[in-house]
Formats: sequence, C-alpha cells, structure tokens
Amino acid sequence: MNDKNYFLKKASENMPELHFRKLVPDIKSFSAESGDSIILDLGEHAVGHFSFSFDRLDEFVDAPVRLIIKFGEDMREINDDFSSYKGGLSSTWLQEEIIHLDFPGTVSMPRRYSCRYIRITVDIARRPIKLFDFSFNASTSADVLSLKKSETDDDWLRKIDMVSTVTLKECMQTFFEDGPKRDRRLWIGDLRLEALTNYYTFNNLQIVRRCLYLFAAGDTGSLGFLPSFIYETPYFFSGRAYLADYALLYVVSVCDYYEHTGDKDTVDDLLEICKTQLDNFEKLLDENMIVTPQDGWFSFIDWCPGLKSLTALQGVYLYTLEHFINLLKMLDDSDSEKYSGLLVKVREASVKHLYDEENQIFASSLDEGQTSVHSQVWMILGGVIGGEEGKKLLLSSLERKDAKQPCTPYMRHYVAEAMMKLGMKKEATEYLKKLWGGMIELGADTFWEAYVPEDPDFSPYDDRMINSLCHAWSCTPSYFIRKYNL
Amino acid sequence: MNDKNYFLKKASENMPELHFRKLVPDIKSFSAESGDSIILDLGEHAVGHFSFSFDRLDEFVDAPVRLIIKFGEDMREINDDFSSYKGGLSSTWLQEEIIHLDFPGTVSMPRRYSCRYIRITVDIARRPIKLFDFSFNASTSADVLSLKKSETDDDWLRKIDMVSTVTLKECMQTFFEDGPKRDRRLWIGDLRLEALTNYYTFNNLQIVRRCLYLFAAGDTGSLGFLPSFIYETPYFFSGRAYLADYALLYVVSVCDYYEHTGDKDTVDDLLEICKTQLDNFEKLLDENMIVTPQDGWFSFIDWCPGLKSLTALQGVYLYTLEHFINLLKMLDDSDSEKYSGLLVKVREASVKHLYDEENQIFASSLDEGQTSVHSQVWMILGGVIGGEEGKKLLLSSLERKDAKQPCTPYMRHYVAEAMMKLGMKKEATEYLKKLWGGMIELGADTFWEAYVPEDPDFSPYDDRMINSLCHAWSCTPSYFIRKYNL
Repeated sequence: MNDKNYFLKKASENMPELHFRKLVPDIKSFSAESGDSIILDLGEHAVGHFSFSFDRLDEFVDAPVRLIIKFGEDMREINDDFSSYKGGLSSTWLQEEIIHLDFPGTVSMPRRYSCRYIRITVDIARRPIKLFDFSFNASTSADVLSLKKSETDDDWLRKIDMVSTVTLKECMQTFFEDGPKRDRRLWIGDLRLEALTNYYTFNNLQIVRRCLYLFAAGDTGSLGFLPSFIYETPYFFSGRAYLADYALLYVVSVCDYYEHTGDKDTVDDLLEICKTQLDNFEKLLDENMIVTPQDGWFSFIDWCPGLKSLTALQGVYLYTLEHFINLLKMLDDSDSEKYSGLLVKVREASVKHLYDEENQIFASSLDEGQTSVHSQVWMILGGVIGGEEGKKLLLSSLERKDAKQPCTPYMRHYVAEAMMKLGMKKEATEYLKKLWGGMIELGADTFWEAYVPEDPDFSPYDDRMINSLCHAWSCTPSYFIRKYNL
Repeated sequence: MNDKNYFLKKASENMPELHFRKLVPDIKSFSAESGDSIILDLGEHAVGHFSFSFDRLDEFVDAPVRLIIKFGEDMREINDDFSSYKGGLSSTWLQEEIIHLDFPGTVSMPRRYSCRYIRITVDIARRPIKLFDFSFNASTSADVLSLKKSETDDDWLRKIDMVSTVTLKECMQTFFEDGPKRDRRLWIGDLRLEALTNYYTFNNLQIVRRCLYLFAAGDTGSLGFLPSFIYETPYFFSGRAYLADYALLYVVSVCDYYEHTGDKDTVDDLLEICKTQLDNFEKLLDENMIVTPQDGWFSFIDWCPGLKSLTALQGVYLYTLEHFINLLKMLDDSDSEKYSGLLVKVREASVKHLYDEENQIFASSLDEGQTSVHSQVWMILGGVIGGEEGKKLLLSSLERKDAKQPCTPYMRHYVAEAMMKLGMKKEATEYLKKLWGGMIELGADTFWEAYVPEDPDFSPYDDRMINSLCHAWSCTPSYFIRKYNL
C-alpha cells in the first residue's frame, strides 16, 4: 500500500504550469477627487492579481489617499451593499479592500481576486489624484490555445459551451478549484465533473492526476472514507468532512480517468483506495442491502433545502459499482466478479425496498416518504430502472410540484446524464438550454454555483452575495455538447 | 548661476546611505480568535516596515481573516479612537490599516510606519489563528555607532540628550524629515535645527548638503523666496508656501554649514541664492526700515494661535544678516560691507519703531500691541537688545500672563538660544529640563511636535491624535548640552 508521502510526491510531480495573461480594462486612467468612483470592466471573467499606478493631478499629494476597491464577478455584486451581508459563510470572502496609498507609486495588490468588474472609490483624498496603468494579471492552468471549437451548429449551445469552458478554465489553477472567489479547495464531487469536462476540452491530464493523488494522501474519517475536500495552497491539508457519495465519486473519477487515458500506472497506485471506499460503504448496508443513515453530515447529493438523500445515495453506490466493475474488467482484476455479484443483489434490493409500485416512483421509506428528482435520477443512473419507465419517472418528477427539485448545476448534471442514459438527447439539450442558458440570459459570463430560475436570490448560505458565480461543478454542458455532438 | 538640474544632481550625489536594523517586539507569537487583540512593544521608537507570519492553530483557516493593525508612537495613540478624529489634517495620516489575509503566509506591510507600539486586533476569524515572527525593519541614515556619549554629569540632561538624539535619528532618513509619522517633507525651519544638532551628534554632512541643494532646486514664489518645504520621495516636488522667516533661515543654515565644515565649494554653489533671499527681504521694508505685512501665509515663527509675528520676523532678518555678514567676511566677499551697513540701519530702526520705552518691551505697532515672548526672543537674537536689559525683558515676558508664550519646541529652541546669547546658561539649562524633560515625564521616547505643559491636548491641527510625537525641530537639547557642556 502506498503511503501519504508517496501520494504527495506524485501530486507534486503533477503540478500543472500556470499561464498568465495581462488584461487591461476598458478605462485607461481616472482623475478623481474624494468621493469619486469608477467601475473598470475587464471584458471577461478573470482570476488573478490587480495592479495600478497613482500620481498627483496637479499639486503633490501629501497625505495618504484612502481607496475602497471592490471586485465583482458580475455587476450585481459590484452594486451590492456588503455591509448588509447576513450569510452563514465568513463576510471576509466578500471581495472588498480598504487601502491607504502614499503618493505617488504603483500598487500590486497582494491577494488574488475573481472578477470581471472592479470598482475603485476614492474615499479620502485631500488633493485631486490620477489613477492609471490598470492591469489584471490573470492565471489559469488551462491551455486556452489548445481548445478546439465545439462543432455544434446551434448558436445557443455554442454560447453555452463557451461559457462552460470559461468556467472550467477559471477554476483550473494549480488544482481544480471549486470556486476561485470563495471556495479555494478541492471537493471530490466537483473534481469528478471538472475532470470529465476537461477530457473533452482542455484535456490537461496532469491536473487530474494531481487532484486524484491529493485525495489519496488525505486522512480518512471514522467510516474509512476519503476526505471530501482538501486544501493545497500553500500546503496540503486534509479536510474534515467525509461524505459517503463523494467517497464513491472518487472511485468513479478514477474509472473515468482510466477510461479516458488508459494510464495503468496511476490507476494501479489508486486501486486499493477505490476498493476500500466501496468496501467501507458496503459495511453501511443493512440486512436488506439498503444504506443506513449515519450521524452528522453524511451525504451531499445537492444543496436542496430539506432534501432527504438516502435513496439517491443508494443510487450513487450502484452507479459507482457499475463503473468500478468495468474498470476491474479492463484491468483483468478478478475482484470484478465479487463486485458484480454485489451489484446484482443491491439493485434487486433497491427495487424491492425503495420503489413505490402504487405511486410508480422511488420514495424510500428511509427518505420518509419525500419525493425528489434526486432519488429518481440516481436510481436511473444506478441502473435500477430504465427504458420508457425510467423516462416517465424522470419527466414526471421534474414536473411534480411536490417533488424536491435540483438547486445546483451539480445535481442538474446528473439529471442530464440520466437523460442521456435513457436516450433522451432532445430533452437533455432543452434542459441544458433552459438551466444553463437561463444564467446567460441573466448576464452570466461564467456559470454559477447555485441557480434556481424562479428564485434569483437563492443561496445555500442564506445570502446571495456570497454565492460563487464561477463554479467548477457548473461547467459540464461542454461535456454533453462535445461528447454527444449536440 | 547654477540651474535646477545642477542642484538636483548635487542633491542626488549626496544621498545618504540608510542603515537598517531588525527590531523584534516583546511578544513572540499570538494565538487568537475573533475579537482578540494584542499590543506589541518594540521597546523603542522606530521608523520602518512591519512584517509577520500567520498560520492556523488547529484546523485549516479557510476563509480570509480580517485584522486591524494600528501603529502608535505612544500608548495614548494606541488607545485613541481614530473614528472620533476631528482634526484639520487628513485622517489618513492616522496609522491604522484593515487587511485581509489568506492563510497561511507572511505579510510584509508595504507602507512605512513610525511607532513604538503595534496593536493587532483580530476582527474576523472563523477559526483560531496564530500570528508569529513579528519583525520591524527600522531605518535611519544616522550612524548610531559613531555617536559619542554626552559628557554631562547631570542624569536628567543625559536622559534629555538621549531622547534628543533618538528624535533626530528617527527623522534622518534619505533627507531630514520633519516628522516620520505624518510630515514626510523637508521644511527649512526644521532643517536648520536638525542640521545644527546633527553637527554635534551624528555629524552626517551628506544629508545636510543634500537638503541644502534640494531647496536650491526649488521654485521660488512671487516675492522671490525659496519654497518653505520640498518633497523628495519618490520625486522632487517644490512646495507652494514661501514663508519669509524660513527663506531667511535657509541663509542661516548655509552659514552654519560653512562655520562647521569650511566647505567652500558647497557654499559657493549656494551663495547667490542666499544673497537673493536677503535682497528680496529688503524690498519688503518700509521707509522706516521695518518689514511690511504681506498677503497670505507669510511668516511662521511658531504654532501659537493668534500670534502676530512681524516683530519677530524683523528679528529673524537681523539675525540672518549678522550670520551672513560673518560668512561673507570668512569668504572675503566684499558684499559684507553692504550688508553690514544695512544691519546697523535696520537695528537702529527696530529699536526706534518697535521698542515700547514706556512698558520696556517690544510690542510693535505692526503687531497691534500684542505682547509675545516671540518678539522679545527675536529682538535679542537680532542684536537689538542685550545685556541685563535683554535678560530682564526675556524673563519677564516668559512670566507675563498676557504675553503669547511659545507652543512648540521649535520656538523654544530660540528662547534657549537667546538665553545662551545673554549668558544665561543656568536658566537655559532649567528651561531645557522643564520644557523637554516635561515630555519625558509624560512618557516620551522621542520629542514631540507640540507641547504645552498646561494643555496636554494642545494641537496646531485641532486634534491631538494627529500630532507628530517624533519631530525634527524638537531635537535641539543635544545641541545645547553638547555645545555648551551643560
């Protein structure tokens, strides 16, 4: 068994190179007095560092000048009043600084920001000043020049594909970041979707390997699952959440990687860990082969308020088993038979115990009678139901007012994946156009962490201001558009 | 006649070397949560840059941490509530920053501060944090190792001498700064006193030459006087005030420099300018040879509220003439006769028109009957009155309740100089002990810009918080103690 140091060494060997590009905003210089403000537009979303020069306009500027500099991923953020923030996450993620400048000079702001717009307010200046040479040094590990255009004929899909690739590009730094504004760590659920889209776009294999190894180096929780997230900047730190669905999706990520690359060496390094995740999950099944609830924050599935997620989790387990069996077969690993036997049994158990024949829907007793799109989607992806029956189930749940609906592009990815699995290419295309295109209609340059069409202020953190507007898990339309030639 | 470029080139050639010294505060590390704060003590006053490192205490610190960092020249400043500031100068001089840190890391704060104490408040931190490796990189162009100890036997004078030399040292950077906290420019009045004390302490001749040349490069005002102040960081900029007394004291500074160094080359470069200052001043005399008032901020003399300063200014003119005549004689410059003739005439006129025989005091009609210590001091220094008569005049004015009293160590220097001129060594010594020692009794590590024993909140700017507590013009006790062997 490989040890933590080995995995960290491999992660380090696979550090992707960052590409830097200097963006110059629309406005070249700004002459101002106390109280004046200006909004710079970089013309596109960017992740990086801001610098500018400052000098007197006429008389020497003796006293220091106080500026308030605000970075917004969109204009709504620029116009937000951060002082009214009431959300659950730290307000320090809101991108605003108060700085004093001793004139004249050049300031290179030390922190990294994620933004398209920059508002500079001259809070206190005793003399007129001039700000100029605005520059934003943007970084990404995505090789933009290597990106082929999508071949779709559909203008709207082409636009959606473009915004997807920009979203992914922005989240590709020295690892797959979740959200460069606020969630500068690597979560397994996001990794899986970013890696998948990356294979069809920038195809940076280094960053995928790096991320897989980083998780392999993590400290497992009490149930033996990998950490659901890790930090890597500036040092490695293993997160303290152990979501069961994320542990499983790590296994799927390894399967995806092998399917795409055939890189046996890397998969050999990680195979034991994958088996361990599945074996530890198996221990959580009851005598009916149905997953049992656990204490604490145990599964994610979606940021849907009040969602009961055990049926969906059962589906993730089946989905993972199926992927893993395929991998083992490709590797000629004899354990494939063991997992195949398990898959059959768990599938049968899932139909028997989780399907409500009378109402023709999955509404697990474990999930206390709650109806959700999530349960149907994951039962479909887990191979418990399919064909016309599956289609009907999915479409009806998406329309049922009493069913919990997906709140994030993350969960909606799996809705679209389920549609593709059921051969519903047309419906999947419409779904992408509606649920991702809807963000573009609202002015998105990159896809958001959370989007509920009927509730533009939806936030998983009780305040929209803190939402990430460029979020890794929302980049998958490019995967569908390119893989399925939509 | 030399031109501006020549003077700037000479100023540049005389750039003094900065010496750096790393100060480590009393406290080595600080573990904290939101709301905690700490006060670091550098053990001495310092001018320079602050840096520290920060890391997690246990869990990774995900969200940025907001710190408020305040720098105080003394503890009173640390405890001041800057939000209640009401003064006339820009509040941005108050040394306080709000910074966001992405953990972990090291921050080297980009601005220069003047302080002994540093208060760090952890404003927002979602997780416990650790701050450590506090370091303050202090700078000065004074060569501290070259400083000889004063030879006085008097403990109190030795202490005053020490604080004086520290004050001067702190103000010696790439030029003579007025006050490193807030007045980062060079004023002629301060230059004269700093240079004088420097000759008896660090004896850095480069910095004196640099400052003399910087003023020589300045743009003169409508009356032909040199600018009263200049900026030199990061580029030369000629100030827009043209105080008559400061223009004269520039001439005195050149005289002092020659007397101390015998450096004929430098004085030759500056002699024309000195003559011009005196000749332009002469044009302001009326038919009685008494200076006439001019529009705007025309003379300084002291930060004494409501002070009428024409009599004092007349004294500065006489004082300057006397110094300049001595210089010309040493240089064998035949113009000395012209100025000598003028000196005699102006002195006679001053007695005649400014001395109030009946009240035995200088109370110029031009100064509208106001009685001030300032008028007496400058008439004594101008040689208009002396001996026992002068002593009586000085002592009585210092005790008169209806007489304007000096508010600054700057003006008090000239009080002490007048005492020395009158042979009042004992009184001068007591005066230094009272008026500078008083600051030490209040905890001063360096001498202040303004000090009024009976009004600890006195400020020339309507708010004590903005006062400079390390001010160049207050460093002169060392000059007296060392020159006169007190």
